[in-house]
Amino acid sequence: MKLLEDRINVDGRILGDDILKVDSFLTHQVDFSLMKAIGERLADVYREKGITKVVTIEASGIAPALYAAESLGVPMIFAKKAKNVTMNEELLTTDVFSFTKQVTSTVSISKKFLSSDDSVLIVDDFLANGQAALGLLRLIEQAGAKAVGVGIVIEKSFQTGRQLLINKGLQLTSLARIGAFENGQIVFAPADDAAFDK
Amino acid sequence: MKLLEDRINVDGRILGDDILKVDSFLTHQVDFSLMKAIGERLADVYREKGITKVVTIEASGIAPALYAAESLGVPMIFAKKAKNVTMNEELLTTDVFSFTKQVTSTVSISKKFLSSDDSVLIVDDFLANGQAALGLLRLIEQAGAKAVGVGIVIEKSFQTGRQLLINKGLQLTSLARIGAFENGQIVFAPADDAAFDK
Repeated sequence: MKLLEDRINVDGRILGDDILKVDSFLTHQVDFSLMKAIGERLADVYREKGITKVVTIEASGIAPALYAAESLGVPMIFAKKAKNVTMNEELLTTDVFSFTKQVTSTVSISKKFLSSDDSVLIVDDFLANGQAALGLLRLIEQAGAKAVGVGIVIEKSFQTGRQLLINKGLQLTSLARIGAFENGQIVFAPADDAAFDK
Repeated sequence: MKLLEDRINVDGRILGDDILKVDSFLTHQVDFSLMKAIGERLADVYREKGITKVVTIEASGIAPALYAAESLGVPMIFAKKAKNVTMNEELLTTDVFSFTKQVTSTVSISKKFLSSDDSVLIVDDFLANGQAALGLLRLIEQAGAKAVGVGIVIEKSFQTGRQLLINKGLQLTSLARIGAFENGQIVFAPADDAAFDK
């Protein structure tokens, strides 16, 4: 998505070897117009796939997921992170390990919001090692629902997440793909939605 | 806001003496059309007030805050919760005590996103004891910005938050105000936006 790549070039900040900070429009301050364009683009890619729910994980995934849900006309569910979830038979839960933060979180969704009738689009802000998206996939499968695809705002293509999700048979759509950081510059790999950039 | 009160009557669940669960449209699964109506209503109330930023706190405040920001045409910022924030001179931080969870969280906003030029609308999903909104107010004041008002989706009017915010000189707009729970039914107090319900 050219609009997004342009914005990353202007406002993204590279920290260290492999961190891209986009807190001025996505992860802390949120630009609603860009988020709306992102949500609509993801909806366009999956519009004919019979999506009934959009699922994300709090908190930075909520804005793009909400606009994708609006454009598709379906509810959005955000999975909850919690260090300690008390035993509760109404919850689907799984553990997700974050390489960035080096912590394991328990992630949960109430059982009543997903059923075998659901076809789900997973949306998240970043894809790196894929553990958050794989955790959401496990919750969706626990519910007996079908995960159709994964929509990602920014993928770090030099990490393992992409291949892990494709190996699960999911249709992956990353709107910006960072192939490498070279001399303080971002080298983009071809985005999955390039055909829609007309 | 009649649309919201009606939805609370249909889908809200009363737990124990003083908890209202609205996880089917606000705090877990999100109904984008209701959130959009809520955001637009809050924007209508504050439209002539020169708002430059909408500030909320992750995670359930994000959806209504985002649509309010869209309707006002300004950025939305969500404050981050963290148990341990390492010392960082670029962060505004304050501690917020949750009576519901009986825990103190450190809440933070990056200094660069708020300045003395900003007039801020605070948005949150619930108002009970007012500690979250008061925490956001402290961050806004630390930045030298002006807090104009507070927009709340659901207020528990039998708790102390309302008076605490009004005592700070803030214009409070609660779209649904729960006066009491009686015999398993919700008794609403008059909402602050009733004049807009035409």
